[in-house]
Amino acid sequence: MDTVHYHEARKFEILKKPIPEIKDDEVLVHVRFCGICGSDEHIHSGELFADIFPLTPGHEISGEISKVGSAVTELAVGDKCVVSPIITCGNCFFCRRGNEVMCIKMVGYGVTRDGGLSEYVVVNEKNVHKFKNISFQDACLIEPTSCAVFGADRLQLPVGSSVLVLGAGPSGLILSQLLKVNGASTVVLAANKGVKTALAQEIGAADVYVELDRADPEAQWAKLKVDYPYGFDAVVEATGSEAIVNRSIDYVRRGGSLLLYGVYGPKAQVHWPPSKIFLDQITILSSFAQRYTFPRAVEYIESGKINVKGMVTDVFELKDYQAALDKVSSRDALKVVVKTSA
Amino acid sequence: MDTVHYHEARKFEILKKPIPEIKDDEVLVHVRFCGICGSDEHIHSGELFADIFPLTPGHEISGEISKVGSAVTELAVGDKCVVSPIITCGNCFFCRRGNEVMCIKMVGYGVTRDGGLSEYVVVNEKNVHKFKNISFQDACLIEPTSCAVFGADRLQLPVGSSVLVLGAGPSGLILSQLLKVNGASTVVLAANKGVKTALAQEIGAADVYVELDRADPEAQWAKLKVDYPYGFDAVVEATGSEAIVNRSIDYVRRGGSLLLYGVYGPKAQVHWPPSKIFLDQITILSSFAQRYTFPRAVEYIESGKINVKGMVTDVFELKDYQAALDKVSSRDALKVVVKTSA
Amino acid sequence: MDTVHYHEARKFEILKKPIPEIKDDEVLVHVRFCGICGSDEHIHSGELFADIFPLTPGHEISGEISKVGSAVTELAVGDKCVVSPIITCGNCFFCRRGNEVMCIKMVGYGVTRDGGLSEYVVVNEKNVHKFKNISFQDACLIEPTSCAVFGADRLQLPVGSSVLVLGAGPSGLILSQLLKVNGASTVVLAANKGVKTALAQEIGAADVYVELDRADPEAQWAKLKVDYPYGFDAVVEATGSEAIVNRSIDYVRRGGSLLLYGVYGPKAQVHWPPSKIFLDQITILSSFAQRYTFPRAVEYIESGKINVKGMVTDVFELKDYQAALDKVSSRDALKVVVKTSA
Amino acid sequence: MDTVHYHEARKFEILKKPIPEIKDDEVLVHVRFCGICGSDEHIHSGELFADIFPLTPGHEISGEISKVGSAVTELAVGDKCVVSPIITCGNCFFCRRGNEVMCIKMVGYGVTRDGGLSEYVVVNEKNVHKFKNISFQDACLIEPTSCAVFGADRLQLPVGSSVLVLGAGPSGLILSQLLKVNGASTVVLAANKGVKTALAQEIGAADVYVELDRADPEAQWAKLKVDYPYGFDAVVEATGSEAIVNRSIDYVRRGGSLLLYGVYGPKAQVHWPPSKIFLDQITILSSFAQRYTFPRAVEYIESGKINVKGMVTDVFELKDYQAALDKVSSRDALKVVVKTSA
Repeated sequence: MDTVHYHEARKFEILKKPIPEIKDDEVLVHVRFCGICGSDEHIHSGELFADIFPLTPGHEISGEISKVGSAVTELAVGDKCVVSPIITCGNCFFCRRGNEVMCIKMVGYGVTRDGGLSEYVVVNEKNVHKFKNISFQDACLIEPTSCAVFGADRLQLPVGSSVLVLGAGPSGLILSQLLKVNGASTVVLAANKGVKTALAQEIGAADVYVELDRADPEAQWAKLKVDYPYGFDAVVEATGSEAIVNRSIDYVRRGGSLLLYGVYGPKAQVHWPPSKIFLDQITILSSFAQRYTFPRAVEYIESGKINVKGMVTDVFELKDYQAALDKVSSRDALKVVVKTSA
Repeated sequence: MDTVHYHEARKFEILKKPIPEIKDDEVLVHVRFCGICGSDEHIHSGELFADIFPLTPGHEISGEISKVGSAVTELAVGDKCVVSPIITCGNCFFCRRGNEVMCIKMVGYGVTRDGGLSEYVVVNEKNVHKFKNISFQDACLIEPTSCAVFGADRLQLPVGSSVLVLGAGPSGLILSQLLKVNGASTVVLAANKGVKTALAQEIGAADVYVELDRADPEAQWAKLKVDYPYGFDAVVEATGSEAIVNRSIDYVRRGGSLLLYGVYGPKAQVHWPPSKIFLDQITILSSFAQRYTFPRAVEYIESGKINVKGMVTDVFELKDYQAALDKVSSRDALKVVVKTSA
Repeated sequence: MDTVHYHEARKFEILKKPIPEIKDDEVLVHVRFCGICGSDEHIHSGELFADIFPLTPGHEISGEISKVGSAVTELAVGDKCVVSPIITCGNCFFCRRGNEVMCIKMVGYGVTRDGGLSEYVVVNEKNVHKFKNISFQDACLIEPTSCAVFGADRLQLPVGSSVLVLGAGPSGLILSQLLKVNGASTVVLAANKGVKTALAQEIGAADVYVELDRADPEAQWAKLKVDYPYGFDAVVEATGSEAIVNRSIDYVRRGGSLLLYGVYGPKAQVHWPPSKIFLDQITILSSFAQRYTFPRAVEYIESGKINVKGMVTDVFELKDYQAALDKVSSRDALKVVVKTSA
Repeated sequence: MDTVHYHEARKFEILKKPIPEIKDDEVLVHVRFCGICGSDEHIHSGELFADIFPLTPGHEISGEISKVGSAVTELAVGDKCVVSPIITCGNCFFCRRGNEVMCIKMVGYGVTRDGGLSEYVVVNEKNVHKFKNISFQDACLIEPTSCAVFGADRLQLPVGSSVLVLGAGPSGLILSQLLKVNGASTVVLAANKGVKTALAQEIGAADVYVELDRADPEAQWAKLKVDYPYGFDAVVEATGSEAIVNRSIDYVRRGGSLLLYGVYGPKAQVHWPPSKIFLDQITILSSFAQRYTFPRAVEYIESGKINVKGMVTDVFELKDYQAALDKVSSRDALKVVVKTSA
């Protein structure tokens, strides 16, 4: 089978490998598409995790079951499926206390074990979730949706909230739609003007759209203040930008919440007055992964309540993985996927 | 002004009265429409509250401000408005603990003080909420919506829940729509086949509709079991029927919730196995009134996220109040309103 | 090794068996004491679970590690430990949604796999929790405490609640103490007068004690009403009695909660007016097992914040298991344990 | 009556004034003691609120009822009482949404209306709470306790949490005790070595005490890291120090919470890496006032579950108010009170 194989950070090639064996509680997934996200750039550069090579990356996996282990009970050959990449140990300080997303020994398909940038991948049954009515390509959005569901679980938006979502990448578009059906009576989506905000409006991701001028967005930020003088019950920061996370707190309503949902650089800092957090009784929280949210993500995508049509903007062949990475880095794509099988 | 005036239970007449005076913190509302609900039947019969007569009933009030007291700050003459009927004492055991909906001395416009079945009603500023973009007639649905918002506050539906709503009266239709945007990924609405379920489908109140045969609904109840073998994360009982509240628990998923949202007769009893509640870890809760939910109810109705078009099925003149009551009793109307002013 | 071996329901003998082998991720526990509870009576009679025999029961296990598998990382030979008996599948409808306590395929040491009524038992590392400063005998109370912690997790008692606990068995005594440090400003413990309520007072399990007369407790029930006219923010039913669960709701404060925490017979029924649940906004919930609560149970017992001194009232030898079961059935013991090793 | 009367910021004198009249829903409180806190310094300097003079400050009021208005129902002459200083409007954006602690027009006895640094003060019945079994002097701690209860309401500590409280002023000592009975299985109290930490240990405010060296506390901060390698489920910052709030986040366990509970200067800033908040899923929240918490505060103090013995370290006569303020500024007192009546 063809596979992306990293020998070490920044050094990969497309290799032929034998199709791997499965254990009793595992299945062999014939991968059809694998989404690429910012984490894959970090894996490429070797900055995010230590000692992970050799590795086949790819954690936004969609495909179909081609073989099942003898102890597998819920899956059958031919099932269309996606993969939850996260494996927690069940044994560490956090897992024993039920806070598994904080697992000290967390590993993951495509991160510390071979993932989906390959024609086939071996996955434990527990990590495989079936779907039926959507395309393999769109199914690559289920993994980011499962993370968004976890974020919404954390946020626990009160009934009838006003929400400001900052950022119109896949996370911003999915969260906007998700929060619209999970407590928000109004979602305002603010993001740089471009292809992403155009798609947002096309699929009706939010209720109101604010397109920020890339060169000088101050007028739009000021107008937001005027239009929403009491701010928002919840502000969702989904850009990862240091500048934006710093100013995001200014749009939180007194008594409201700020959800950090961007990948921030290790050197980024916020500079907030504690007196503001204190006197305005602002709650700041975050969400960066997921546990137990795949079934709901599948339902949201299958029912169309979260519409992902058009979010895959770029499809590459496995052999062109470098080009796929370059496209992700360019920031002018929404979701880049790799077609792993003919 | 013309007004419905009860001398005692079951004895009312349409009287001419002088327009009442207002205090500094009150406004005079020129009532346009006043909705009638089951409670008004109980007020008529004198069964619900003691020592309330003489009384002008009517608590689903929409109108416009015709006079403001000297200390009023948020309202002006001409504002279109609805009235939150509930007044809590702020002083009793429950109010002092912040559980105001349990106020021992709760009073209410149209219940223990003169209400909206009159050309004019005097209301404290705090109980008046403005609206803009909807008709006076549709605005009568804001009060029931504020109760539904309170119910949703209580229910705290987790992200991506499956929900079964039993009953397609105004409460059922409003709750179905409200829960669709507050955590439900699927709402199944089950109710007796008829005008109400027809309207439900017309306005898209739910995701799935189950029409119960009035004569023999067992086939539909059985099919629900087959179609949803794990039951529902939440079941909302919005009929008030003893038979239905008894069986409602059978449709709750293990670990799920049952919300009682019907007005049950004082002699009704449930007969549930405590072992089922225990082993299935079912949570049973209820909601019967509201506090602090009017602003959100106004937003939901104004934005159309809760669509009330067509819910007012019958309009009566003030002089025909008895006919309005009879229509409510007939159970073949959805929302009956009285046109209080020419 | 000596072991209690059931061939079928009601048929057990004390057998010599070879010490079993362990897998890589398992440990061999040298059992010192094993507590007996009501479930063990049901296992004896074969009424609770189907197809579980042959079986060695016993799920309140304390002992020390005598052997560790090659993949075990957190445990070492000689560690004093207790065992969480529950094993969830991670793969079913409920496990995939994170509601593991509802696992359809839940199994358990001493319930569906060999348990602790034996000199040795094999346990997966994840189910073993270390302790240090308490006796092996007292450690048998950690399992019931872990269930109580789960119950408190479910109850989410608000700050400064008044609580009524009904029942002074191990669960009642543990829950009273646990809730005293988890939200209760007052715990009233009501139970039949006898050895259990005497111990409750000796260890200071509650703030106030109500001793019910076994023959005619009506005077005490009536006095509770007089002494606590607003009822209790939370009532915990920890007797399993049909009569008591029926009346328990009458002691719940308006807006309060009722926690079912007793093992009710399959034919028991509650007969509650839904109008009371509705108008008093009572929340009814339950808790019957545990997940992720052992670390906290160990801490509570080790710190003495939950005092279990004196709760073990009867110790039997392994060979006298029938006598131990008889003692549990007699209802005049608090906690019966079996000394499994010399 | 004698009273502290501010003509303007920093300009006060002790005046004789006539005892004021009361309205129907008000009572006249004969003030016995009035506590002084940091806010009173800010009121003195005129920095905290605009346009509040002329004013009699004092908001930690204990006394007895000497006169009741005609509409007063819950209070009688001679009742010992404390005063909740906060009055919310019930009419603004936040009050109408039930978030009254965010009231835009919040006023307060001793802050914007005449308070308790006087022989008598007029208070609305709703703001007066009775007590019985404690001294007037100790009752001055009920107001800070009501704020702490509000903080605990906000924090919603999970069952069996580990907690680090930073600061041993009245807030730190009260919160430590409160959290010990509201979810904490361990409370570690860290504060500068001195009279405050000595009292903390005397009354058993926490489970573990860390005395920070004022000159160089780095060794103690480092030891905290070693002793609690996983950090704390909740860290409560109760010092108001910019340096300490900045470092407080480093002691929060992954998935844990940080409660800001200090009065921070308007120019203070935190400099936190958003990547830490994001990846460690830290929740940051705050609490600065109270609503609906006085009844519970009274219960906690009366029952002795929160022990305030010894917290009043300094008592001044009304005529010596300047000395009282100076003592508060000195930071070597715990609670300073003024004896307002002979």
